[in-house]
Amino acid sequence: MLNTEFIAKLREIVGKEHVETDKADLICYSYDATQRKFLPDVVVHPGTPQEISRIMQLVNEHKIPVFPRGAGSGFTGGSLPTKGGMVLVMTRLDRILEIDEENLVATVEPGVVTEQFQQAVEKVGLFYPPDPASLKFSTLGGNVAECAGGPRCVKYGVTKDYILGLEVVTPTGDIIKTGGQTMKGVVGYDLTKLMCGSEGTLAVITKIIIKLLPLPEAKKTMLILFDSIDGAAQAVSAIIRGKIIPTTLEFMDGRTIDCVRQATDLQVPDDAQAVLIIEVDGDREFLAKQVGKISEIIKPLGVVETRVAETPEESEALWQIRRSVSASLRKVNPDKFNEDICVPRSKVPEMIRKIDVIADRYDVPIVNFGHAGDGNIHVNVMIDSKIPGEQEKADKAIKEVFREALALGGTMSGEHGVGIMKAPFISMELTKTAIDYMKTIKKALDPNNILNPGKIFPSD
Amino acid sequence: MLNTEFIAKLREIVGKEHVETDKADLICYSYDATQRKFLPDVVVHPGTPQEISRIMQLVNEHKIPVFPRGAGSGFTGGSLPTKGGMVLVMTRLDRILEIDEENLVATVEPGVVTEQFQQAVEKVGLFYPPDPASLKFSTLGGNVAECAGGPRCVKYGVTKDYILGLEVVTPTGDIIKTGGQTMKGVVGYDLTKLMCGSEGTLAVITKIIIKLLPLPEAKKTMLILFDSIDGAAQAVSAIIRGKIIPTTLEFMDGRTIDCVRQATDLQVPDDAQAVLIIEVDGDREFLAKQVGKISEIIKPLGVVETRVAETPEESEALWQIRRSVSASLRKVNPDKFNEDICVPRSKVPEMIRKIDVIADRYDVPIVNFGHAGDGNIHVNVMIDSKIPGEQEKADKAIKEVFREALALGGTMSGEHGVGIMKAPFISMELTKTAIDYMKTIKKALDPNNILNPGKIFPSD
Repeated sequence: MLNTEFIAKLREIVGKEHVETDKADLICYSYDATQRKFLPDVVVHPGTPQEISRIMQLVNEHKIPVFPRGAGSGFTGGSLPTKGGMVLVMTRLDRILEIDEENLVATVEPGVVTEQFQQAVEKVGLFYPPDPASLKFSTLGGNVAECAGGPRCVKYGVTKDYILGLEVVTPTGDIIKTGGQTMKGVVGYDLTKLMCGSEGTLAVITKIIIKLLPLPEAKKTMLILFDSIDGAAQAVSAIIRGKIIPTTLEFMDGRTIDCVRQATDLQVPDDAQAVLIIEVDGDREFLAKQVGKISEIIKPLGVVETRVAETPEESEALWQIRRSVSASLRKVNPDKFNEDICVPRSKVPEMIRKIDVIADRYDVPIVNFGHAGDGNIHVNVMIDSKIPGEQEKADKAIKEVFREALALGGTMSGEHGVGIMKAPFISMELTKTAIDYMKTIKKALDPNNILNPGKIFPSD
Repeated sequence: MLNTEFIAKLREIVGKEHVETDKADLICYSYDATQRKFLPDVVVHPGTPQEISRIMQLVNEHKIPVFPRGAGSGFTGGSLPTKGGMVLVMTRLDRILEIDEENLVATVEPGVVTEQFQQAVEKVGLFYPPDPASLKFSTLGGNVAECAGGPRCVKYGVTKDYILGLEVVTPTGDIIKTGGQTMKGVVGYDLTKLMCGSEGTLAVITKIIIKLLPLPEAKKTMLILFDSIDGAAQAVSAIIRGKIIPTTLEFMDGRTIDCVRQATDLQVPDDAQAVLIIEVDGDREFLAKQVGKISEIIKPLGVVETRVAETPEESEALWQIRRSVSASLRKVNPDKFNEDICVPRSKVPEMIRKIDVIADRYDVPIVNFGHAGDGNIHVNVMIDSKIPGEQEKADKAIKEVFREALALGGTMSGEHGVGIMKAPFISMELTKTAIDYMKTIKKALDPNNILNPGKIFPSD
């Protein structure tokens, strides 16, 4: 329990109505997309960077841990108040401050919802590519903290690639600006990129300067059914070597397609063992040419069927198969552990085969889909955790998936981050000296280990 | 002077022939492109990361500063041994270890020369875009340490955007790997990007994992003469808003054109007050369409003449005007201070006008050219430093250029870094708290301040 003097100070800083201590209110901020629950002692909704600065000074005095939170849509527990203390909800800072159409730069507050920002810039003919699956509710601050990805990253890169500068409040309460509004800048260390993906452990983000692109004139969607995952994987490499970098190169493996067949009435031929959904964007005239070239390239690779959308409605229909996956999986088993390993593109089929072996060994259904273009596979371990022993099997299977991904030169997380879910495993990927180097940075900047403690690193 | 025991240990680590202490040899490593000179006490040419690790342990014991060095082509003194001590020459580590054509990833040692790497990957149909002007001799390790740019960055981004992972030796002698071979990865802090542009102050780079692109099918060059710098600047914005991001968008201002007119017999009409050199790349067929569209877009903006190259030879001829600049400037005055401010793209004409005022006020010739597409202006202050008072005038003019760039939302360095040349000025751009945050990182990782001390920060 926090002392009343501390709570009174907080109320003085942000206003009485922005401090919550009732259990019913605390529960609302006790979980995220991992479904793990940790009750905070207090929830604070600051309105300005200055208030956050004062809060950080106060919590350092009182040694109260602080857990910044956007929409709480993270898959690894990055925003969970694992040690009680304070949840710092950033959603009152939700203004788009500027869209500079001349320089293709926007400045926003961290609480802006990703999709709302995308729509705002598209209205003026501009484009913000990163598209995490949670974009309808996730916030840009959370996207930056986790370095969110999405299907379009194969062509356009991840969140980090669009962040030019930040305003942040440091763990000790200083307000600093990193980077700036220019396309280039090399004065001092690149704190902007250091913050991206640091999962809220190094500073609280209060402003984000974002690089935009011109909105592509048009896009075109293809859905291609292959008779093997190898054919689909070879297609991915062949398309890119053919000098075409599609906007998205999404795949679904055979087990995923089975789930879709069982759960929906979508038409998927029996001999289809893998699906690629390919989208290209750009100049309208040029797209037709690209689609033709892709069809040509993939022809010898075991194509069962190719569907090309001619209208936005047809494109939407093609995406139905992909969008039906989550609901279809839930019919298989109620609990899904969605991992997001990433391997070199060419290793995707080998990885899928290894996952199939692991699924058989532990007798747990594992279905795979995701971003084939960049080797980022969403490995979904499906269990019913109410059945005794299932959770243990899933845990073992996941650990083996990580081990195999690393053996193939991959990583255990392409876009979800570490949080608390993967923290126990990071020493499989990073050497002790590398972890120590990172912890040295954390310790130097946050001497009281006050900001989002217990995240990323196995133990503090 | 270093003690003989220390030198003996060094010889033991790297081999006798790789340690130089003769003054004649030391002089060779005492300068860089800034023409400043600082004599080291010893020059060491290590051959492996393990040797570098042992060297770092040794210098920490003896508190000898170490200055890593690639080709010494930097413009801000990043590799200068300003405090004597050891120059660590990285050029023996010069192997291209792998070009993974399937995954578009290469692994190299830091001593590989930029252009040689570009040629090697182009031979197999791949592409490494960053193209600093020094690419014929600069090394990739130096490019990463300074986060080098170049004309193609407007479309393709800077060095940092291509670095997926590193192997580095820390200031205390640990060998660590950062990032990896995958396109995405969010496990732990992004040390890779933190190293990029940290100017050799945080670690010694021993291996670089580089993302490649498919080599564009073709390119097309246009040279356009405008009757005003405003017309040229408006053209830059209009082209990008027209959804065309050219490979390069280089400009030269009126004063630069005057120098070229005076020093060469290249044909430049009298009413041309600004030049844009625009290159587009990609699909051959599509390029003709883009050139047509660019011509259409720029038509109302005061075009004096448009020249389009149809062959590589004609393209080379168009670039002659740009390539003749350095030699032309030298005829104006022997000493050139080449700064590289960067402002938001739309502010380029305003910045040029402000620079013209500064040039008049201090009575020093200042000519401007550079990367208009990303607002990165090379501001060349031309003096004869043998004339008393000239250096002082140049110093004052440069400081005012920085001030005006910052007032327009810019930075004092887009691609050259800080080194020693801009270190006295960085508090104009960064607040004390931001500098302190960076210095805290440096101090934590390099407790003895042994690795490239005296760089970036105004005083240690």
